[in-house]
Amino acid sequence: MVETIRRVYESYGFDALDTPFIEYAEVLGKFLPDQDRPNEGVFSFKDDDGQWLSLRYDLTAPLARYVAENLQNLPRPFRRYQIGTNFRNEKPGPGRFREFIQCDADTVGSASPSADAEMLMMFGDVLEAVGLKRSEYAVKVNNRKLLDGVLDAAGLNVEGSDDARRRRGIVLRAIDKLDRLGPSGVRALLGAGRKDESGDFTTGAELTSDQAERVLAFVASGGEKSAGRQLASLEEAVRGSRIGEEGFLELRDIVTTLEACGAGDLIVIDPGIVRGLDYYTGTVFEAQLSIPVRNAEGESVVFGSVGGGGRYDDLVARFTGQRVPAVGFSIGVSRLASALRAAEATAAPLVVVLVLDKKDAGAAFRRASELRAAGLRAEPYVGDSGMKAQLKYADRRGVAVAVIEGDDERARGEITLKDLALGAELAKSVENRADWVKDRAAQQSVPRAKLVESVRAMLARKT
Amino acid sequence: MVETIRRVYESYGFDALDTPFIEYAEVLGKFLPDQDRPNEGVFSFKDDDGQWLSLRYDLTAPLARYVAENLQNLPRPFRRYQIGTNFRNEKPGPGRFREFIQCDADTVGSASPSADAEMLMMFGDVLEAVGLKRSEYAVKVNNRKLLDGVLDAAGLNVEGSDDARRRRGIVLRAIDKLDRLGPSGVRALLGAGRKDESGDFTTGAELTSDQAERVLAFVASGGEKSAGRQLASLEEAVRGSRIGEEGFLELRDIVTTLEACGAGDLIVIDPGIVRGLDYYTGTVFEAQLSIPVRNAEGESVVFGSVGGGGRYDDLVARFTGQRVPAVGFSIGVSRLASALRAAEATAAPLVVVLVLDKKDAGAAFRRASELRAAGLRAEPYVGDSGMKAQLKYADRRGVAVAVIEGDDERARGEITLKDLALGAELAKSVENRADWVKDRAAQQSVPRAKLVESVRAMLARKT
Repeated sequence: MVETIRRVYESYGFDALDTPFIEYAEVLGKFLPDQDRPNEGVFSFKDDDGQWLSLRYDLTAPLARYVAENLQNLPRPFRRYQIGTNFRNEKPGPGRFREFIQCDADTVGSASPSADAEMLMMFGDVLEAVGLKRSEYAVKVNNRKLLDGVLDAAGLNVEGSDDARRRRGIVLRAIDKLDRLGPSGVRALLGAGRKDESGDFTTGAELTSDQAERVLAFVASGGEKSAGRQLASLEEAVRGSRIGEEGFLELRDIVTTLEACGAGDLIVIDPGIVRGLDYYTGTVFEAQLSIPVRNAEGESVVFGSVGGGGRYDDLVARFTGQRVPAVGFSIGVSRLASALRAAEATAAPLVVVLVLDKKDAGAAFRRASELRAAGLRAEPYVGDSGMKAQLKYADRRGVAVAVIEGDDERARGEITLKDLALGAELAKSVENRADWVKDRAAQQSVPRAKLVESVRAMLARKT
Repeated sequence: MVETIRRVYESYGFDALDTPFIEYAEVLGKFLPDQDRPNEGVFSFKDDDGQWLSLRYDLTAPLARYVAENLQNLPRPFRRYQIGTNFRNEKPGPGRFREFIQCDADTVGSASPSADAEMLMMFGDVLEAVGLKRSEYAVKVNNRKLLDGVLDAAGLNVEGSDDARRRRGIVLRAIDKLDRLGPSGVRALLGAGRKDESGDFTTGAELTSDQAERVLAFVASGGEKSAGRQLASLEEAVRGSRIGEEGFLELRDIVTTLEACGAGDLIVIDPGIVRGLDYYTGTVFEAQLSIPVRNAEGESVVFGSVGGGGRYDDLVARFTGQRVPAVGFSIGVSRLASALRAAEATAAPLVVVLVLDKKDAGAAFRRASELRAAGLRAEPYVGDSGMKAQLKYADRRGVAVAVIEGDDERARGEITLKDLALGAELAKSVENRADWVKDRAAQQSVPRAKLVESVRAMLARKT
């Protein structure tokens, strides 16, 4: 799966950039995902000089650091992808790991909605390359400036004071919890605040109830049937707010570009998508599966997001002060793999050359080399055991074909091939193992010179 | 390079196994590479429960932990490869990194010298797959039991007391320093010990001077011309020692197997190879380049090892008590890459579809999609800038072909292709940039329907 994703990213002209696993703690500290609990969840330690180092918890913060350091030497836009492990210092649990692989792609140095549209298109191509049909997922898109516009139009100028920005953050996080808390819980968070079952109190955004209702109505406005009608109603909702109109135009540009290249059905506008991270500035999106996914107990579950991203125009500026617009997204490999039940790599079929007599190891090595030279996957048996254990080994490895060249075969200039997959198939219909062993259908002798083509033919009849 | 190595490992029937980056500190502590300074150089930190965790410093210790935990469920032999980053907590310097990628392959659960022979063969195939000729490197092989046999024959029973094992360790480390300290320095370490220039004293192995001379003579015995004569002289050196004879037979088996499959010239027996790690029990080997390598200053340097490995039959037993024989090797990617000056990946040539008018972004997306669907690597320009900046961008990215479809072209149903590599070539022979821009040889108009085949043709004329 990782290789498939890599291939799509490469095909779009993104280049690999591998940033380090370890960064100075202050680098990551500049934009931790959860502003309420700085440094929570990050693995940190001191180096020999007593400086604090941290393991990266995502691929975006190190990218911003890299771009800030190398801005003058990078092409603009700078297009990179990275597939790497990230770390969170928290108790592992179902679906929560200390280590997880993410596949990120980013376009840095372009403010154009074209860059956003391309990200969405590539996201869809990735999901289809790993095996989803377009009808089985939706990439839900929003623009944070739209909500800012609604707040703005409702009398809360979000670009103003630090306090307004703080309240905007509370509004975003409240909307993000809509699925979990329902409208009444979100309404509380938009207003005076909310006490949960354990008695913990979460500060509210202190909107008036009129403002809160406007926000909730806006978030619920995703119901229109066509993108055109959605856009019309969004334009209406933000009318009169400069920031809101900016967000509207960006979103409309994205829709126009995707429709112009026949990919209009890829996205669904959803004003309820906000993405939790503090640093997004405009377009935000996430991919959700629309097919039923079963959990380990076989129950159908709402799977949620398999990845997402957005525009983070201010992130690099946290290092240099210089604004460098950027857009990117991240796919969680284990989540996607478990959704697709595709975690097990399907390696090429394996051929094992068995060794009847240890003296013949050299001959087995030669046969395996011949098969590899022909592009097949082959190994000589290199364990210490006899034929029975070798067949058991081949069985456990899921070997497709076993090659046997004993003294008898050698005297006739022949080699015996055993089709182990067919053998297993036949074994289902015969009474006992002795019958199966006698069954010759799964076994054939071929001239030694025809080793490669005979193995190929045997592999071909499986597919 | 990493992909090439992966392909070779896969072709030999090894399967990917990715163990975690983080292990409990005590897991790694069981066999730290440097027994004299436990925990030195390992990044460690506490989790939420106060348990110490460490970042892996190699891929072998975590493998041993994994095998010990999963022994009953693994095929035997268990063949895995892993390509991953390891970590050392030390000051970065030339050739010394805090993070470095290693490519390991291991066969666990076989004591057969066949498994060792196969490792050596695969090591050679990897080095040749990444671009070395067989004459440009040597895989130097030794067996630690031979040295044990020499010590044994010299009256120091290495299998006896803890003290004897400790002294054996000192002997191995002393021999490993032969290149650096010369025979006199090693002789001091074999005897009473050695004081270096800074006045630090290293404890010696306390061999008698007769024993020390025998060891030095044995190490120097690599000079024989043929493997057969080397083997004969080694057999002589260990005669009468059970452990020594065991090592001799293992080494002879490896030579026989490799010669039987025409790979006898792959290895060089070298009794001076010991490998620093404490855990090797038998066969040890490392690959050294025999071609001159130039450093950053252009000076020819002795490059040393690009990787190595050996047999570690007792490592899993440190967890379970159960002996599980194993052999493996490790390649340092950055060392190998810098030796080959192949650090830069050679990606497929890139095509960029330029955007003359932002209204045409959709059309540019369509062209890029067409090219990708044909298997080419293509991107629409998604930045904010005009044509001049777009060409500069293409230049910095090393783009092969630029595709231009402006209003003129569209009216004629045509597309303009610019061969940027040829353009750059021609630019060398013309006076100024204006001439180059006028030069049409690097530019052609083609019918829109022939986009893919025309781009292909343009790319083909470069190769």
